[in-house]
Amino acid sequence: MKKVGLIMGSDSDLPVVQKAVDKLKALEVPYEAHIYSAHRTPVQAKEFAETAEENGFGAIICFAGKAAHLAGAIAANTCLPVIGVPVKSSTLDGLDALLSTVQMPSGIPVATVAIDGAANAAILAAQIIALGDAELSQRLKDDRAKAAETVLKKNAALDI
Amino acid sequence: MKKVGLIMGSDSDLPVVQKAVDKLKALEVPYEAHIYSAHRTPVQAKEFAETAEENGFGAIICFAGKAAHLAGAIAANTCLPVIGVPVKSSTLDGLDALLSTVQMPSGIPVATVAIDGAANAAILAAQIIALGDAELSQRLKDDRAKAAETVLKKNAALDI
Amino acid sequence: MKKVGLIMGSDSDLPVVQKAVDKLKALEVPYEAHIYSAHRTPVQAKEFAETAEENGFGAIICFAGKAAHLAGAIAANTCLPVIGVPVKSSTLDGLDALLSTVQMPSGIPVATVAIDGAANAAILAAQIIALGDAELSQRLKDDRAKAAETVLKKNAALDI
Amino acid sequence: MKKVGLIMGSDSDLPVVQKAVDKLKALEVPYEAHIYSAHRTPVQAKEFAETAEENGFGAIICFAGKAAHLAGAIAANTCLPVIGVPVKSSTLDGLDALLSTVQMPSGIPVATVAIDGAANAAILAAQIIALGDAELSQRLKDDRAKAAETVLKKNAALDI
Amino acid sequence: MKKVGLIMGSDSDLPVVQKAVDKLKALEVPYEAHIYSAHRTPVQAKEFAETAEENGFGAIICFAGKAAHLAGAIAANTCLPVIGVPVKSSTLDGLDALLSTVQMPSGIPVATVAIDGAANAAILAAQIIALGDAELSQRLKDDRAKAAETVLKKNAALDI
Amino acid sequence: MKKVGLIMGSDSDLPVVQKAVDKLKALEVPYEAHIYSAHRTPVQAKEFAETAEENGFGAIICFAGKAAHLAGAIAANTCLPVIGVPVKSSTLDGLDALLSTVQMPSGIPVATVAIDGAANAAILAAQIIALGDAELSQRLKDDRAKAAETVLKKNAALDI
Amino acid sequence: MKKVGLIMGSDSDLPVVQKAVDKLKALEVPYEAHIYSAHRTPVQAKEFAETAEENGFGAIICFAGKAAHLAGAIAANTCLPVIGVPVKSSTLDGLDALLSTVQMPSGIPVATVAIDGAANAAILAAQIIALGDAELSQRLKDDRAKAAETVLKKNAALDI
Amino acid sequence: MKKVGLIMGSDSDLPVVQKAVDKLKALEVPYEAHIYSAHRTPVQAKEFAETAEENGFGAIICFAGKAAHLAGAIAANTCLPVIGVPVKSSTLDGLDALLSTVQMPSGIPVATVAIDGAANAAILAAQIIALGDAELSQRLKDDRAKAAETVLKKNAALDI
Repeated sequence: MKKVGLIMGSDSDLPVVQKAVDKLKALEVPYEAHIYSAHRTPVQAKEFAETAEENGFGAIICFAGKAAHLAGAIAANTCLPVIGVPVKSSTLDGLDALLSTVQMPSGIPVATVAIDGAANAAILAAQIIALGDAELSQRLKDDRAKAAETVLKKNAALDI
Repeated sequence: MKKVGLIMGSDSDLPVVQKAVDKLKALEVPYEAHIYSAHRTPVQAKEFAETAEENGFGAIICFAGKAAHLAGAIAANTCLPVIGVPVKSSTLDGLDALLSTVQMPSGIPVATVAIDGAANAAILAAQIIALGDAELSQRLKDDRAKAAETVLKKNAALDI
Repeated sequence: MKKVGLIMGSDSDLPVVQKAVDKLKALEVPYEAHIYSAHRTPVQAKEFAETAEENGFGAIICFAGKAAHLAGAIAANTCLPVIGVPVKSSTLDGLDALLSTVQMPSGIPVATVAIDGAANAAILAAQIIALGDAELSQRLKDDRAKAAETVLKKNAALDI
Repeated sequence: MKKVGLIMGSDSDLPVVQKAVDKLKALEVPYEAHIYSAHRTPVQAKEFAETAEENGFGAIICFAGKAAHLAGAIAANTCLPVIGVPVKSSTLDGLDALLSTVQMPSGIPVATVAIDGAANAAILAAQIIALGDAELSQRLKDDRAKAAETVLKKNAALDI
Repeated sequence: MKKVGLIMGSDSDLPVVQKAVDKLKALEVPYEAHIYSAHRTPVQAKEFAETAEENGFGAIICFAGKAAHLAGAIAANTCLPVIGVPVKSSTLDGLDALLSTVQMPSGIPVATVAIDGAANAAILAAQIIALGDAELSQRLKDDRAKAAETVLKKNAALDI
Repeated sequence: MKKVGLIMGSDSDLPVVQKAVDKLKALEVPYEAHIYSAHRTPVQAKEFAETAEENGFGAIICFAGKAAHLAGAIAANTCLPVIGVPVKSSTLDGLDALLSTVQMPSGIPVATVAIDGAANAAILAAQIIALGDAELSQRLKDDRAKAAETVLKKNAALDI
Repeated sequence: MKKVGLIMGSDSDLPVVQKAVDKLKALEVPYEAHIYSAHRTPVQAKEFAETAEENGFGAIICFAGKAAHLAGAIAANTCLPVIGVPVKSSTLDGLDALLSTVQMPSGIPVATVAIDGAANAAILAAQIIALGDAELSQRLKDDRAKAAETVLKKNAALDI
Repeated sequence: MKKVGLIMGSDSDLPVVQKAVDKLKALEVPYEAHIYSAHRTPVQAKEFAETAEENGFGAIICFAGKAAHLAGAIAANTCLPVIGVPVKSSTLDGLDALLSTVQMPSGIPVATVAIDGAANAAILAAQIIALGDAELSQRLKDDRAKAAETVLKKNAALDI
């Protein structure tokens, strides 16, 4: 199965990244995680992106806050689908990261999920890879069915 | 090759949708377009989503403005990757559509692109389908190389 | 008397929902509460809405955060008045939920109240039902008179 | 049948109000329209609200822009359901009117619809009155079915 | 000397109001404080405003949060200068109160100060009253000179 | 009667300033207008402010857009009441000017009116000066009564 | 004298860039302009930045709209001062470009000016270079004095 | 070497200022810090700016929150490069300070960095001064190389 790349701009993003890792593990999707900053280590970020396809990646999830350029910088150097997770930082409640991630110019898309939406980024990456993997596709459907059941159980137990 | 579904909430979104159609045609990606409103025709929207996988779709692009629920409503009924294009309407400059599309709850991702970012949505859909199609993958790389050349030609001609 | 439906997208909304329950109890308005997610349990949400009128509901209050589609999804499947309570979540201070709830397209209104405005949603539902119930109408007037008295007592006691 | 009151803060709101009038006429709901400013004619606005119930109104729709206090000022003087339509003016794209209308303090709800969402305000008022009027209820369902048909016809004719 | 009226919409605004009281006391400006809600006690709010001039007030400061209509409601019923203090509440960081206070329609101004800017509201009220009171005018100048001295002392002591 | 100073940061603000001039003329309040930029002519701006009281001014209205510092710069150099009119410019719809004008630090208030709210600034200045001028006070009341009559006439003529 | 680099992300930015060119010409500061996109031509953008110091540049001005990464991408590859001009595009009024430009992570500053503030970017670049060039420093002072004179002449001619 | 001026509007800004001091010390750039308020001590602020060039300053960093006029007020009185650090205060998450600092009118630039971005302001000041100081230029490059190494070490140690 193709791997999912997880690139974070700073190790302060780790608590958010962990939620993506947990979901990928639950869905049995292989992954590889790195800390590469678009601004502090542009060379390594670029190199990772340029070689991602030949290295067996099927999608890359990027995590960054503030003027979040990481997803765009990775997307500029690969034609693989790149998913951006805007990370909330100490000011502006994540709006800066959201706009910096999603408002990409024509030609270089970034598939943006919710602010701090790491689990959804993992599911989206799995959905992309599942196009060529019927078993993963089934695991995604099972996962969703389980989520529905959880809601319905809570509904059944609701007593207010 | 898997098809791309294009669902718009209203025919007023057509000028934006057309830019996605143009890009898909240029990339030789088959597509099928529909007008289904999450609110005015919820039954048809749901039915499309539920049968999209068996009907040969590989990704679905949804276009909607204001309280843009369409992408989320489609995503709730399929495990295929769903791409959301927030469409700018007469107030709030598209911010309402952006937040309504991107801020999805855990479990149901929508791959959101820029406000009115239809061409990028098409490229993203093509990138997803290209994971299993080396020729499409090559066309994406050629398209990007051509875009780079265009910039460099304009740069060479710049005279200010 | 017609019942008020209370639908929340997630049990994390319970602290907000409780304020609506308290107010409905105080006004002696019958209610029924459910957890149904527009995205994780779309079938059940739709079914509730479609049968709400015949099941004796007079108004439905929906609670949801982030890309809050629940009220719209319910409103798309019933012609009963639907009230939306945008719930504040961990980012963007409830602005995403407010815009996702209030900016509904033409044809499908959602009666939106303030962010986390659960008590007001309950009062609004009671006002709607009270159109056909003179005693409830009187209880609403008494409740408001009491609120005025509370303000005036605090004013009389003010000492700064 | 109970009437719907339409109160606008200024005659500059007339183009927006007209869309509510058109929808109420189409639904055969009686209405009465007035220009009363919360700030320039507070006495008349208050008087209208205080006597609205005894004068046969079942719901009141208020239209105002900028620091849109009108719906709140009306709601403070009646226990009838009050619907607020935030009207977009020359600055801030209607965000000021939206927040001034929807963020009401506990005790005095305003059922807020989208910025310039006059048709939806009319439908919401009709839904409220229809709780006690089976024929109006049927007209609302017919109106919605017709809207769905329109979408489906456009879908059938779509050719891109 | 003319008095300053201090009207708050709710006793939850007291911590903010206290800062205005402290400043008025320091400037030896007489004041009178009340809790009157524009929505819950509209009659008393209106009555206060209508009689404020004959009761010896020279300016009225209003404190309110969320859809802060209080200052506008007072201003609609008097031609005295009315000062609005937008109070920050649990959502939207005071932006709703700011826009609801400052964006008044033509004809009814509200002199708006910063969110939670109670001390400045008191100084502004004193500046207005000081136009006819040379001693108060001098106290304002002294107060400002003292503030400058405080800054300069801190500057002299700065050691980083 | 004390004069009103009108200071604009740039002659591009003239169309907005004119509305204040018209209102002051209608209220028979003497005024004096200047173009002084807080940034391009700081010396003249400061000098105007420092001598305003002895030169017979009772209030100063400042007009500025973008990072609108003018009102604050004037207020820093006088203890007269200073009124700020945030002027909308080509970006951000006046929000930058509003926040730059209203969010003044403790000690130096600016009485802020709506974005482009020049007529209200003039009325506020007149209200301030009218505290010591019974005839102007009466003209303000007459002006307001006339505004109410205009609304009521429009209401009487309303035919929709 | 050191040169100023002008890098724009797209030739659609030319009308904004021209204002910087005009100001640099007026100040007799040498410049060199290029079109390099951070996303479409990342290699050339990086190369320009890496060689800018040895090629005689003293400051680099970057122009970009939407998710404006260009200034950050240039700044990541040089230690020269980099100035960012956020360019307003068809949605969000330039707020996306402003936040994407200014909210840079620690270590890589971008000196951000106003949205579309090209002339100021040119002046800032000139101020930086003027630290080592007394004649340019004098031209900047003369330019500013002339701007002040223009304001004062307009003030003298003001007749309203 | 030319000095960097650090001017803060209030001693409450000290925790932010300290991060700039730390970075300047690390880069061995001489500095001088002052507390001068644009509004409470306008005379001293102006005097500092007017004499900054002759006193050996090469750049001035200004720290201010809310309606942050300080950087603009300093920039209005010198042709040295002025860097603005918007400081987050108790409301609006620093957006008010950001817009008040960055949206300067034509003629008077302020080089704005991120909200609370004090370290970057120090680096930017050092980059400006380093144009004429090869050793400082080298220290900046070393500092950046070290930052890259830190990221790469964290990457090497990453284990999730």
